[in-house]
Amino acid sequence: MKQVAIIFSGCGVFDGAEIHESVLTMLHLESHGITYKCFAPNIDQHHVINHLTGEEQTQTRNVLTEAARIARGDIQDLALLNPEEFAALVIPGGFGVAKNLSDFAFKGADSQVLDALKTTCQQFNTQKKPIVYLCIAPALIGHIHAQGTLATIGTDPDTAAAVTALGAEHVNCEVNDIVVDEQQKVISTPAYMLATSISEASTGIEKAIAHLHKFIS
Amino acid sequence: MKQVAIIFSGCGVFDGAEIHESVLTMLHLESHGITYKCFAPNIDQHHVINHLTGEEQTQTRNVLTEAARIARGDIQDLALLNPEEFAALVIPGGFGVAKNLSDFAFKGADSQVLDALKTTCQQFNTQKKPIVYLCIAPALIGHIHAQGTLATIGTDPDTAAAVTALGAEHVNCEVNDIVVDEQQKVISTPAYMLATSISEASTGIEKAIAHLHKFIS
Repeated sequence: MKQVAIIFSGCGVFDGAEIHESVLTMLHLESHGITYKCFAPNIDQHHVINHLTGEEQTQTRNVLTEAARIARGDIQDLALLNPEEFAALVIPGGFGVAKNLSDFAFKGADSQVLDALKTTCQQFNTQKKPIVYLCIAPALIGHIHAQGTLATIGTDPDTAAAVTALGAEHVNCEVNDIVVDEQQKVISTPAYMLATSISEASTGIEKAIAHLHKFIS
Repeated sequence: MKQVAIIFSGCGVFDGAEIHESVLTMLHLESHGITYKCFAPNIDQHHVINHLTGEEQTQTRNVLTEAARIARGDIQDLALLNPEEFAALVIPGGFGVAKNLSDFAFKGADSQVLDALKTTCQQFNTQKKPIVYLCIAPALIGHIHAQGTLATIGTDPDTAAAVTALGAEHVNCEVNDIVVDEQQKVISTPAYMLATSISEASTGIEKAIAHLHKFIS
């Protein structure tokens, strides 16, 4: 049975991993008979957002500790992720990707990626193993993959321009569809960059995981 | 289109709402063409559990604020829930139900339910509207519904005995099945009381929502 690694960036759309996308990733992987293990970096979140009011809270939370909520405690430090043990990688979206795993939310085309994450993703890529990037996670692609790797964050022109400036080739994509770079084995789908409901997010993620399943079968 | 209310008890299995069950509830409601609105009580959590270590954290978190993470900010104070606007109610599980919505985790057969929740559930019941209780949430049934209302928390003998002592009639149930009290329009399923994977939890929840759909169609 194939095993896939999932990397979370916290727990909650505005300061961490988008929860629906994270859960839908686990669900659709299992539906395709793919097992998974969860990881997150053991670092403080950039900040904590009150998801009711949108305001910043004066609190410190750890990305790994909060991501453990989504994983029901069954999660490990990203530092322990050995790509040799996995057939592929999935990175769900949420602002955590752009605030904790990188600084894309603040610096756009001038952003950097967390070293540990970049190294891990590049190892998967070197081993010719597919990576699925959901929602805003394709903003990482330019840092990791070959120049011109196909990527989508949906249709937002400014975000797309920043993704392209970082080295990927942005392709507009509807919420229920995916963009695949067959050479790099990179799959992306807009999810909540465009989704207006959980079913819409689910359709694109299901398609992404189905294509991942083809890649690793 | 029928609209259903969902009541969350926080965000995270050990001190709040079980995240997978919460997301699967939203997904399966939408799959059946049922819209929903999310609610949670505006109270402090009983405590905060580090989901990585299982230890208690010295922090205060609010049930409504944390539940807003699952609802992507689209959630209201339970005090604003008007049962007249909804065809049914769903309460996902997680220790939050037994720690924040009631004290079942600490007092079992001697537990009490949060007044605001009890009143709301009883209003749905008086209006002959169905309520779905997932996972440990059926521990609330004895407080709310007619004596002897059928309920399941799976197969754990001690928990089942406490549910029965509170006034419900416990029926053992497998993870992929549901228990229905047709008279009271009460549906329960074990979910993560028994599930060892998200697919297992999904199967029972899907069946519960399908039966709910029949009740309100």
